[in-house]
Amino acid sequence: MQTIGYAAQDTSGHLAPFHFDRRELRPNDVAIEILYCGVCHSDLHTARNDWGWTTYPTVVGHEIVGRVTEVAGDVTKHKVGDIVAIGCMVDSCQHCDQCLKGEEQLCREGNTGTYGGTDRVTGEPTKGGYSKHIVARQEFVLTMPEGLDVAKAAPLLCAGITTYSPLKTWGIREGSRVGVTGLGGLGHMAVKLAAAMGAHVTVMSRTADKQADALALGAHAFLVSEDADAMAAAASGFDLIIDTVPVKHDLDPYLPLLDVDGTLVLVGQIGPMNEMNTVPLLLGRRRVAGSPIGGIAETQEMLDFCAQKNILPEVEMIAMADINQAYERMERSDVRYRFVIDMASLDLAEVA
Amino acid sequence: MQTIGYAAQDTSGHLAPFHFDRRELRPNDVAIEILYCGVCHSDLHTARNDWGWTTYPTVVGHEIVGRVTEVAGDVTKHKVGDIVAIGCMVDSCQHCDQCLKGEEQLCREGNTGTYGGTDRVTGEPTKGGYSKHIVARQEFVLTMPEGLDVAKAAPLLCAGITTYSPLKTWGIREGSRVGVTGLGGLGHMAVKLAAAMGAHVTVMSRTADKQADALALGAHAFLVSEDADAMAAAASGFDLIIDTVPVKHDLDPYLPLLDVDGTLVLVGQIGPMNEMNTVPLLLGRRRVAGSPIGGIAETQEMLDFCAQKNILPEVEMIAMADINQAYERMERSDVRYRFVIDMASLDLAEVA
Repeated sequence: MQTIGYAAQDTSGHLAPFHFDRRELRPNDVAIEILYCGVCHSDLHTARNDWGWTTYPTVVGHEIVGRVTEVAGDVTKHKVGDIVAIGCMVDSCQHCDQCLKGEEQLCREGNTGTYGGTDRVTGEPTKGGYSKHIVARQEFVLTMPEGLDVAKAAPLLCAGITTYSPLKTWGIREGSRVGVTGLGGLGHMAVKLAAAMGAHVTVMSRTADKQADALALGAHAFLVSEDADAMAAAASGFDLIIDTVPVKHDLDPYLPLLDVDGTLVLVGQIGPMNEMNTVPLLLGRRRVAGSPIGGIAETQEMLDFCAQKNILPEVEMIAMADINQAYERMERSDVRYRFVIDMASLDLAEVA
Repeated sequence: MQTIGYAAQDTSGHLAPFHFDRRELRPNDVAIEILYCGVCHSDLHTARNDWGWTTYPTVVGHEIVGRVTEVAGDVTKHKVGDIVAIGCMVDSCQHCDQCLKGEEQLCREGNTGTYGGTDRVTGEPTKGGYSKHIVARQEFVLTMPEGLDVAKAAPLLCAGITTYSPLKTWGIREGSRVGVTGLGGLGHMAVKLAAAMGAHVTVMSRTADKQADALALGAHAFLVSEDADAMAAAASGFDLIIDTVPVKHDLDPYLPLLDVDGTLVLVGQIGPMNEMNTVPLLLGRRRVAGSPIGGIAETQEMLDFCAQKNILPEVEMIAMADINQAYERMERSDVRYRFVIDMASLDLAEVA
């Protein structure tokens, strides 16, 4: 199937129209017309090869909402016309212990990324959601629940599940005390999701600049990390801190804020952290963890939870042609809180 | 009560005979003649004020085994003649949530260290086990179970509980896969305790030098961390790694060895660690934690477990007068695996 997307051709990361083929449907496949695609920081890192694993041309995008246009013979989960979604992965081995318990993101053979992965049948690089169409096996196609605004929901597929999953892993519920550092795409979803679970949510930031925004998003409290008195008063006050800061940084100011057996879970930075002092870990049996997206069943659960609780990301809609400018703004943190590409802006007529 | 011990008077850490008084018994107190005291790295750090919180003169030692010589009126737990033990703490608030659940080591008000702490009644600095006598409230005096060699058991009170507690916290049992880094006082106890719980135990070390010793202690396998092929083959193979290395070091080589949701628990280094890369944490939902000693009930459980399983530290007995030389040897890691001071070597006649 011929389609069109926007691809980066080199480490400049500059995106431009790109014609390519989606595979013909395998018996288990679903073909999707993409309606919306969220813009994740990982897209930018991949387009520029910041992590060193990009192969060009690369079509990024893994926060995908679309409509089913065709299903192959073995497909039972979806039908033509369904509104569906795809997140950060499109395949996994389906037989390891992790896959069998629904943790495909932790597949022993490695899951297949929606972009930059390697197709398990053809060995070709996978291409993501900055495009008009996508084809994927039915197991990795989520069902968009009724009542969730399809124009805003796309960022749930990465920013949503990446913050929902640790909240579930660490048992957050009514009355839990949750801190959130970094109030961007992931952080603002962490606030909304934790609050919807009944947690008492505190946003932590170096300055008070984001206080009004944090409270508007549903946070109950705000903690200025440069205020030593406030930080001391908050010691041992959190069951979980979700750290969405996507750059190398210090954990030392935050670890004493965890209660006994509390966990700081890293979901933002992919790479080195600054030196960490073990004293708060030892004295409070505290923990530092990482967490990657979530499994397919958990992602569906998250979508259903968001529909039920009416939780949506804060988004700014852009046209596909605006993507390079959006990247520049994203780099300046000039987005509240996630760009979403309206794929209707990508003219079908451009397809050869 | 007049007694004699060995004290450091300044940051040289040099220890010499020191006469001082133990408090008169409070209604809840037990007086103990110390028979043996283990020599912990913390003793050396405190004697030299490496952590900046020492007040001189300091009498260190928190691996104490002795005989009850007197009990005050309210004491019900111990009687004169009992063989008992004291570990790293001698008091706590006794009313916070942590104390109430038997986690006195995590007391909200801070537990009172056996040495270098502050007596909760008099405000005076506490003095530890490098001495002929000690007085402590009964709740913090452990019962030495029958069948445990009193001459060797002292290191269980710190090295033993510090490694036993994380094994219990992280649910180690028959078939668990446990790694141990650092084969010193703590590490050798981690090997013995984990093996006695039925775990498959692997000692990890930079070179193969310690392989024979590790296997002799009960380890089932040995992993040379400088052997890249062996490390790659061991990836995702551990439920828990107990890291007893007492200096600043890298975690990056060890984190990929943890299975999904596995934990590396730091019990050795108190201070900064090298920069840590988040990738293995994120990809495997792995965790890094710290753990401090254990509660009183858990310490008693550990002693009973060791008696039942016939687990004892490997010790080298020294006289009190040999302590400065022992510190020098400990600094060179020239001890297998713990010095124990025979307090009979400290002449009672030296008491003024």
